[in-house]
Amino acid sequence: MLKQQLTLLTLAGALALAPAARAQTTEKLDAAALAKIREEGLNRSQVMATAFYLTDVCGPRLANSDGLKRANEWTKSQLTKFGLTGASIEPWGDFGRGWDIEKSYVAMTAPYYHTLIGAPKAWTPGTAGALRKPVVYVKATSEAELEPFKGQLRDKIVVLPVPAPLKPSFEPDAKRYSDEELKKLAEAPAKPAAPAAGTPTDAERLATRKAQAALRTRMAEFFQTEGAAAVLSNRGGTDGTFNTSNGAPYAADAKPVLPELEMSTEDQLRLIRLVEAGVPVEVELETKTRFQNQDLKGYNVVAEIPGTDKKLKNEVVMLGGHLDSWHAATGATDNAAGCAVMMEAVRILQASGLKPRRTIRIALWGEEEQGLHGSRGYVKNHFADPATMVLLPAHEKLSAYFNLDNGGGKIRGIYAQGNEAAAPIFTQWLAPFADLGATTVTLRNTGSTDHIAFDAVGLPGFQFIQDGLDYGSRTHHTNQDTYDRLVPEDLKQASVVVASFVYNAAMRDQKLPRKALPAAVKPQ
Amino acid sequence: MLKQQLTLLTLAGALALAPAARAQTTEKLDAAALAKIREEGLNRSQVMATAFYLTDVCGPRLANSDGLKRANEWTKSQLTKFGLTGASIEPWGDFGRGWDIEKSYVAMTAPYYHTLIGAPKAWTPGTAGALRKPVVYVKATSEAELEPFKGQLRDKIVVLPVPAPLKPSFEPDAKRYSDEELKKLAEAPAKPAAPAAGTPTDAERLATRKAQAALRTRMAEFFQTEGAAAVLSNRGGTDGTFNTSNGAPYAADAKPVLPELEMSTEDQLRLIRLVEAGVPVEVELETKTRFQNQDLKGYNVVAEIPGTDKKLKNEVVMLGGHLDSWHAATGATDNAAGCAVMMEAVRILQASGLKPRRTIRIALWGEEEQGLHGSRGYVKNHFADPATMVLLPAHEKLSAYFNLDNGGGKIRGIYAQGNEAAAPIFTQWLAPFADLGATTVTLRNTGSTDHIAFDAVGLPGFQFIQDGLDYGSRTHHTNQDTYDRLVPEDLKQASVVVASFVYNAAMRDQKLPRKALPAAVKPQ
Repeated sequence: MLKQQLTLLTLAGALALAPAARAQTTEKLDAAALAKIREEGLNRSQVMATAFYLTDVCGPRLANSDGLKRANEWTKSQLTKFGLTGASIEPWGDFGRGWDIEKSYVAMTAPYYHTLIGAPKAWTPGTAGALRKPVVYVKATSEAELEPFKGQLRDKIVVLPVPAPLKPSFEPDAKRYSDEELKKLAEAPAKPAAPAAGTPTDAERLATRKAQAALRTRMAEFFQTEGAAAVLSNRGGTDGTFNTSNGAPYAADAKPVLPELEMSTEDQLRLIRLVEAGVPVEVELETKTRFQNQDLKGYNVVAEIPGTDKKLKNEVVMLGGHLDSWHAATGATDNAAGCAVMMEAVRILQASGLKPRRTIRIALWGEEEQGLHGSRGYVKNHFADPATMVLLPAHEKLSAYFNLDNGGGKIRGIYAQGNEAAAPIFTQWLAPFADLGATTVTLRNTGSTDHIAFDAVGLPGFQFIQDGLDYGSRTHHTNQDTYDRLVPEDLKQASVVVASFVYNAAMRDQKLPRKALPAAVKPQ
Repeated sequence: MLKQQLTLLTLAGALALAPAARAQTTEKLDAAALAKIREEGLNRSQVMATAFYLTDVCGPRLANSDGLKRANEWTKSQLTKFGLTGASIEPWGDFGRGWDIEKSYVAMTAPYYHTLIGAPKAWTPGTAGALRKPVVYVKATSEAELEPFKGQLRDKIVVLPVPAPLKPSFEPDAKRYSDEELKKLAEAPAKPAAPAAGTPTDAERLATRKAQAALRTRMAEFFQTEGAAAVLSNRGGTDGTFNTSNGAPYAADAKPVLPELEMSTEDQLRLIRLVEAGVPVEVELETKTRFQNQDLKGYNVVAEIPGTDKKLKNEVVMLGGHLDSWHAATGATDNAAGCAVMMEAVRILQASGLKPRRTIRIALWGEEEQGLHGSRGYVKNHFADPATMVLLPAHEKLSAYFNLDNGGGKIRGIYAQGNEAAAPIFTQWLAPFADLGATTVTLRNTGSTDHIAFDAVGLPGFQFIQDGLDYGSRTHHTNQDTYDRLVPEDLKQASVVVASFVYNAAMRDQKLPRKALPAAVKPQ
């Protein structure tokens, strides 16, 4: 109770700066309905069963992969079983090639045999059968530094540097928000304060990133021109955990690249240390990947609980999360967790026999990891194109979109995304969940996931605040983002909080308040 | 300084119970020599270079493997380069078969492709080429529970349970001793207090272990009789880290067993969850292992710094650690660290131009992981057989043996191993290292490594207290015991402390005091 009051106080403090929000109304909450939601979600949860199917059974769900197709089919079928209507796998537009791994084997064979932990980078080709080649360590921070390697790489396996050395970890992998951290978050403005002098501007950072990307492209071309056999790279991770990413564009007409694997940091560093000490190193490599060019479209899975109020049923409350993942694990925390919770939330509403006034629509997005493609495509098709800001009729009818995609941790509150009128509503909606640890409303914007697609066209799109657990340290975009990381009690709690938010939004007399419409975005 | 005084006080408290120790003499410490040791060890250290060769260059050093042979040859040569004399690879007796991995590949191929992290258990055979077989999950805690699997395992890959489910970790991997913990350790008696009522006795624990081993053997025979193709097992670990062990006896006449791999816990649990949910699972497996039956002997590497005092040079101070490791990593903390520190200690003494009165002998033991075989064989050959306690002439001439084998952490003190007369000497020897964190003398016995071989025949054998770092949580007997875990500052500190202890023991007028001789041990 104290925590809850504290949040209310600090929120009131923050809102004192925001006149529009002062005239807050009292939300009518249906205590009986919320009790049903809680009862169903905490005592008859199916969220872990759903998470198991999404992760272990469907497998990795890379954009336009077989795994994502399996997940699309299964979620469509499962949402129908939950009693939702009109479940469909809806194309959002053109994405690019499908890609799946069919074999991945890599080992050091000299100076002695040692299996290496690694996986092909997404959208890279496989090796043509098994290779066994000497290794060359290429450390270059500019094109000029590639010069010494001219003529040295033919039929060699190129090993690239690791971003940082390893050290024993004196910090726990997993953490939860402290009261102090939540208080700070509650008091944070929508946009962070201006960065300290000397901090690179967004434009400077973009320029740096572009320069780095250009160098990477130039290096890749160099290795190819020089006739290298394959590339082993690393983007961090430790203890057998490694980070994964794409190694080539997914566009159907992308230029061919070399086979490239992302390696565990320990293994990559061993190769590097040996080469640097002048020890001849040989690596054996056999990877097989399969491209799919028949269907280049991307898809979202959508399904509805139809509204029951004559006047309001053509209005919609949406909830969702992205169903796609990276390829070297089963994307449990990123983002089977979010999808399982959203599916569980609509299951809870159905199973509780509640009759929402507005229509509730769940969307499981495709191709988020490559740039929120699924949600952006959906928003463009249904609501508005941020490039023109010409609004489609449905734009007027959407009350809000709720997203979950910050790992598997329980919900501690919600990012109001600068929506000062929505914040006090959320504070009242969270009140019944203080005992479950969900108390904090922050005006702060949070980014990098699908609610941004809605926010970009002036629709109320929100992401919940979640305990981080080991999302940042261990699972996010790694080969260890597996079912094992999911904490049943956290996902049950999240399902109940989401179900209640969606239900409240569907029952409210008015749609949720909106921020001012943004201007059309000029294409870059 | 406070910490040092505290330790002295608490030690004095502990020793008040031990009349023999009250009449402690004042140790003569050669401040100039200790300054030289410190200077050489902290400012011109080669310990990380040595550790690199032992781990990355020599590779895994399983008992009687190629890697251990490489390490024997390299350490012999390197100790000679350091200026030691008589370096030799000395057989200690009969061990058993050599075994090396030549290929290790395992992947799930249905319901979708996923490379699995694992390694053959030591001394298991490889598969005859590549296998691709359905998986059966066998969970049995008694022979009776195997019954339902009769007729079910032919040409199948058996998956065994994992010891415990996984959870996100809220504890750091790496830790150092707190002052409080060191104080407790300093006050601890040689033998822990009697266990609480209901705690199993040693005999009961032994009986449990024997019963478990008998069941494992019975299960292995059952799988073989039933015609299973291979076994996948797990002994814990997380995040891509897994524990390793032997899967078959190393005796030359051991009965053949099935190919068996130890798997990462995440991968093993995924297989289990899928099978339990009724999803057909198929695994592809190709391992190749090589047995070596030509040379069944085990070896230790020994080398000396000859003593310079006419009367004392036929007396010996020994230091050492085991050079062998498990096979799925390079045994960095278990125990390349200990060997690198001991080698560095003798290098420091040589490089500092110090002239020890007694002879200093370093021993790098083989086959420790299978039961302290190298050190036990050496002690039996040179000093005494614990079965008879007939003392050989050299028994009288050994002052002490110092061992290091508790990971890569810096030295915080020493286990006096119940030697009440030695404890106050060590307290004085540690005094100059308070600023480096080494302050604690405990009477407590510590076990499980090579000083026990000396202690067992009444010779003063000691193991240092080390900060644990991530030895217990991450590296000990795992596939992630790699060079990356080693902390240079810790190993430098340890080298300096060990060099000073060995030097003090070599310069002291008397040999170190001994405990009473033990009775001959009846063979079990």
